[in-house]
Amino acid sequence: MSGQISVTQKLVVAGMLTCFTSSQGLLMTASKVGGKYPYNVATIPLLAEFCKLMVSLAFLYKEHKEKGHNLQITTAWSSVRLFPIPSIIYLFHNNVQFYTMAYVDAATYQILGNLKIITTGFLFWIALKRHLSRNQWLALSLLTLGAAVSQVSGCGNSMLSAPVLGYLFACLSAVLSALAGVYTEFLLKKNNDTLYWQNVQLYGFGTLFNAARLTYDDINSPAGGKFWLFDLTEGYNYITWLIVINFSFSGLFISWIQKYSNTIVKVYATSSAMMVTAFLSIFFFDLEPTLQLFLGISIVCISILLYFMPGDLPASTGLVSALTSSSKTLPGSQHDEECGKLK
Amino acid sequence: MSGQISVTQKLVVAGMLTCFTSSQGLLMTASKVGGKYPYNVATIPLLAEFCKLMVSLAFLYKEHKEKGHNLQITTAWSSVRLFPIPSIIYLFHNNVQFYTMAYVDAATYQILGNLKIITTGFLFWIALKRHLSRNQWLALSLLTLGAAVSQVSGCGNSMLSAPVLGYLFACLSAVLSALAGVYTEFLLKKNNDTLYWQNVQLYGFGTLFNAARLTYDDINSPAGGKFWLFDLTEGYNYITWLIVINFSFSGLFISWIQKYSNTIVKVYATSSAMMVTAFLSIFFFDLEPTLQLFLGISIVCISILLYFMPGDLPASTGLVSALTSSSKTLPGSQHDEECGKLK
Repeated sequence: MSGQISVTQKLVVAGMLTCFTSSQGLLMTASKVGGKYPYNVATIPLLAEFCKLMVSLAFLYKEHKEKGHNLQITTAWSSVRLFPIPSIIYLFHNNVQFYTMAYVDAATYQILGNLKIITTGFLFWIALKRHLSRNQWLALSLLTLGAAVSQVSGCGNSMLSAPVLGYLFACLSAVLSALAGVYTEFLLKKNNDTLYWQNVQLYGFGTLFNAARLTYDDINSPAGGKFWLFDLTEGYNYITWLIVINFSFSGLFISWIQKYSNTIVKVYATSSAMMVTAFLSIFFFDLEPTLQLFLGISIVCISILLYFMPGDLPASTGLVSALTSSSKTLPGSQHDEECGKLK
Repeated sequence: MSGQISVTQKLVVAGMLTCFTSSQGLLMTASKVGGKYPYNVATIPLLAEFCKLMVSLAFLYKEHKEKGHNLQITTAWSSVRLFPIPSIIYLFHNNVQFYTMAYVDAATYQILGNLKIITTGFLFWIALKRHLSRNQWLALSLLTLGAAVSQVSGCGNSMLSAPVLGYLFACLSAVLSALAGVYTEFLLKKNNDTLYWQNVQLYGFGTLFNAARLTYDDINSPAGGKFWLFDLTEGYNYITWLIVINFSFSGLFISWIQKYSNTIVKVYATSSAMMVTAFLSIFFFDLEPTLQLFLGISIVCISILLYFMPGDLPASTGLVSALTSSSKTLPGSQHDEECGKLK
């Protein structure tokens, strides 16, 4: 099936992921009532995981009816047992995030969060043994820098000043975030199982882990109150449901991209989305556009060009001949990149 | 003679230009007494032009004694009359700068000043017909953006807000600045005249134009006072003389680079110097380092790599084989670039 996926399809899915992710922040803000969330925010990931599980089950059923025994499904425990691992990594990641925030302020936290771009590149290279060209490394560095530039608030913002432990936690958080992405890619690509069955396993365990987390929170909550399952959607408005649907589709797009393209494409889509959000916020919430945002967006655009079209046009020949001949004359560089990048 | 210049020599001169230029801002600040310059600032360019003229005359005399009639010198009026043109462009440029500053604030003015990097690229391409590769265009854009990032002050700094006329003057100023650089490169390269004779013409006219400007200022000054020649070095301290020497050597390095390398190399050296100055200021004047400066310097470093080593290493083959084979296997791209860039 992988062979049937065209570059256009990949671009469309990456584009949709960018759109969905960029509207998340806007929807979250819009769902507030009187400056506060009128619902339990932790219920959103649970419902989203459950929703993705249902969608994947429906598609799996449909595919099973169409293909019958031709459908490749690995049900051996040695394979299934690998699927809770991303959820476990995210569990660790959430805790490390919590510790990081204890040491660094919100603005610094957001800027340090971009480190996951570089750590994803490293794990992609080391763990998945996928080599990146020098220009692609430069592009990933630029994506990290450009995203940080757009987030620098400026005012009184001297060099990031936090305890060393805060930076260590931020780095650990970046490594765990990258590990979850790269490990999921490994899981989805390790065999030719149908994506829907792989999704069912991923989101089944995801639902379980999120439910366990809510139960744990309930037990440790001093306030008491009802068991989470009984007031699951309390305070939900229609925007909250839009958020759940948005998270679900974003998740499905991400696993599609990780199966048929790769984690770096996901990182580009979600990092670009962050800047689209900042840009849209200017209109929706009547904020003043900052020069930093404009500079950051320009840098990220250059990064995208450099990553996905790393081959260079020669300077010595004329521009026209360069445009017409370069993709044929640069062995291994231009052509392989363009075809192999969104693979 | 051009053939004898090695890449190492070019790197050394570009490095010296960066060092000299980066110390200019620090020396200017250090020469202040009670927050003000105790001397007429306009006398510095005049003395520097005169100093460069004397040095060039001395070298020309030495070269003439060594080579005699083998020395190539064009004294035809049709050639000599071209040499005041850079001075005339700078005269226009200074006036446009003056108008720009009437419309935009100092911080915006500094950020808009980086536009000269891109305009230099355009004139280099259009007027000198020197093609830049796509990655080199991306690199020039990054140099512009990186320099701007390091200068964004942040506090209450919303999108550059100035009258449209201010931006038009800033663009015109960027075009004139680029034109002066590119035209000088054309003058120095149009024939194989010895650089010292070309310098004598450039700095001879430069001295004349600067003297004329001081005279003009004297005539239009309401305060009266002595003729400028009689209190030329009034208020000079030893740092002021260091500034004159610094300006002189920087100018000589620039014309050397424009003859044996090119204007883009000059732009890289002086733009990098700006950031070195900002970095050194942290230590010398006890300023707090900003995150913007760190991000800007990183972006400029990537730009330098991308401009001067635009060839990419292929991603599809292993890293080791890529490192050993790429310069041989990429026709037109890697090899031509590296050899041709500092030409």
